[in-house]
Amino acid sequence: MIDFIASGTISSPRGFCSGATRAGIKESAGDKLDLGILFSEAPCAAAAIFTSNKIKAAPVVLSQQRLKSGRAAVVVMNSGCANAFTGKQGLADAAEMADLAAGVCGVLSEDVLVASTGVIGQLLPMERLRTGMRRIVLSREGGHDLARAIMTTDTVPKEVAARVDGGKFIIGGIAKGAGMIHPELATLLCFLATDAAVNIDFLRLALRKAADISFNMVSIDGDTSTNDTVLIMANGLAGNAVISQSNGGDVFQQALNQVCIHLAKSIARDGEGATRLIEVIIRGAASVSDARLAARAVVSSPLVKTAVHGNDPNWGRIVAAVGASGVEVVEPKIDLYIGNIGILKSGQLLPFDKADVIELLEGNEVLISVNLNLGTATATAWGCDLSEEYVAINSQYTT
Amino acid sequence: MIDFIASGTISSPRGFCSGATRAGIKESAGDKLDLGILFSEAPCAAAAIFTSNKIKAAPVVLSQQRLKSGRAAVVVMNSGCANAFTGKQGLADAAEMADLAAGVCGVLSEDVLVASTGVIGQLLPMERLRTGMRRIVLSREGGHDLARAIMTTDTVPKEVAARVDGGKFIIGGIAKGAGMIHPELATLLCFLATDAAVNIDFLRLALRKAADISFNMVSIDGDTSTNDTVLIMANGLAGNAVISQSNGGDVFQQALNQVCIHLAKSIARDGEGATRLIEVIIRGAASVSDARLAARAVVSSPLVKTAVHGNDPNWGRIVAAVGASGVEVVEPKIDLYIGNIGILKSGQLLPFDKADVIELLEGNEVLISVNLNLGTATATAWGCDLSEEYVAINSQYTT
Repeated sequence: MIDFIASGTISSPRGFCSGATRAGIKESAGDKLDLGILFSEAPCAAAAIFTSNKIKAAPVVLSQQRLKSGRAAVVVMNSGCANAFTGKQGLADAAEMADLAAGVCGVLSEDVLVASTGVIGQLLPMERLRTGMRRIVLSREGGHDLARAIMTTDTVPKEVAARVDGGKFIIGGIAKGAGMIHPELATLLCFLATDAAVNIDFLRLALRKAADISFNMVSIDGDTSTNDTVLIMANGLAGNAVISQSNGGDVFQQALNQVCIHLAKSIARDGEGATRLIEVIIRGAASVSDARLAARAVVSSPLVKTAVHGNDPNWGRIVAAVGASGVEVVEPKIDLYIGNIGILKSGQLLPFDKADVIELLEGNEVLISVNLNLGTATATAWGCDLSEEYVAINSQYTT
Repeated sequence: MIDFIASGTISSPRGFCSGATRAGIKESAGDKLDLGILFSEAPCAAAAIFTSNKIKAAPVVLSQQRLKSGRAAVVVMNSGCANAFTGKQGLADAAEMADLAAGVCGVLSEDVLVASTGVIGQLLPMERLRTGMRRIVLSREGGHDLARAIMTTDTVPKEVAARVDGGKFIIGGIAKGAGMIHPELATLLCFLATDAAVNIDFLRLALRKAADISFNMVSIDGDTSTNDTVLIMANGLAGNAVISQSNGGDVFQQALNQVCIHLAKSIARDGEGATRLIEVIIRGAASVSDARLAARAVVSSPLVKTAVHGNDPNWGRIVAAVGASGVEVVEPKIDLYIGNIGILKSGQLLPFDKADVIELLEGNEVLISVNLNLGTATATAWGCDLSEEYVAINSQYTT
């Protein structure tokens, strides 16, 4: 139903342009891009999910306010400075950032949203930002640069685009992640663009549903940094009949889910210091919330993560993490697989070759699946192993 | 009111003896002690707090059952094997372990409690355990060996004893901890002994209160491994009038609190790979639960922990962790100190010398204090920095 576009990115859907530059927001970041713009030629229905952190960054406060209208045309974004815990000056700076981008794009400032990521508690270097903004050149290919401009400790840009329903419309997106042990403190940014025409109420609902099974299933729940933002803009330039729950809603939801899961997995795979992707599937849970909770508990357990890193078939840590999650679990009912190797059947240890498990753990992707055999609910979560490199990265982030 | 006894341990209170041996439960552990007994000459009022993990180890199931009586005389304990996720055989093994210890001590098996820590999902090597048990020699000085016998990745034994009220009675204890990023998967064991006579209902209450402000404030809440146990035995050999809430309860509670906090801090300081102790004090919270939640959020944040490890004065991560905890917080009211250096006053950044903060962070103990200025509630939590060594330890635990 959907096919991924080779080298697809956020500016792949019709009518979207992007561009980025190095404004020098973080002095020491070499020639890294750190400021960019996403622009739609036509006004968009726009919806977003923001952090639930009680300390909300200035750009989050601003964008949340502006999105009450359900419309937007531009997003301006930067890395290197989160503009969080910056008080009134931070809010003024975020508003000026929007004004500057509005000038570049020729739209009203109220149609501009803002997103930032980087160090908390520092003011934006506005003079550099003003100068940098003037250098941004928007183009149809600019999504690739934009994906790079929001990277912090990410090692690769995350971008994707997919044609839906034989090309009727396109959904593209970019994302950044990186700090993955406890995503509540690592900023997740994701921007999605589509040329489909979508009813705003349905768009809000669809984004929430897609995020729930993708970004909210990466490691813990990803929704509590000061700056987290998942945003979608739909400009309608595909010329389709307006999509709503009852009109093409399923197709749109499925496509959006897949794009979001693709980006979420990219984030997990590129967790700070990560050397492999961990996918955890919980089946047979008593409820969906149980399945989700257990899947996230396993994928975010540092003891599971370090065991995977060390190729240590320490399966006891997996069942302990399930038990610690607080979900309903009956020990003599648990089935456990690592990859396709059965470890437990009805709570009983199966005869397996430790060497085979070690070989599986050494792969790029490690699949852990648990069947609780208590019900029919299922959930999948993604994470990464925990390496010495994670600590090295985070010990010296501002210094 | 209490004075700590030099070289005090769990067998310091009158009438308690201990002993330990190397049974070879974990083949590769060299000459490490791994099996031990705590014995009281007189029957004890006994209370305990056990893990809330849904997967409970066999010794937890057994001890929980036996403690309904509120009495015990012996605890037998081992490291190297958690006897968790071991089904019916595990329960039978735990019961036999108790029987064997009852034989050594000359008490009824029903008065024996059991505790284990180590790898999950493996059966106890019962033949070695039977042989080892016969070698245990009980003595008044044996507490030191017992503290060593329960160590897993701990680098130092944790033991303490204190004279209370001018020597009227003594409280002693030993503990083990070690895996400290996410204590829900690292076993916390703590055994406390006192020669005071204590009413069983009050003893249960006092233990819960003491644990709430000590072990439950180490990193996260420490109560969800498969094997966590905090246990106290009171044999009454001090000859005091029976302590209850209305009769000497305050003095006993204060002393128990101090002993538990001492052991909890020892555990935090010796977290896996830890190089320093982190103490987080939250003041001015709107409620006690807010204060506790925020203190634990800061001390368990891997981003704060890695920043401390790298001597990185990245204070933004501290306020972000407070915000992420979900407690009531008003940005322009926050005061923040690192050691005695003011960082924020009413949400405003103070002029401070970064070099001074770095010097503080390099010390053995790092104190972070936050005043939310919203109410009068206070809480303190303890943790440790997160180092590359933590990852190295946990990558190769079973292999």
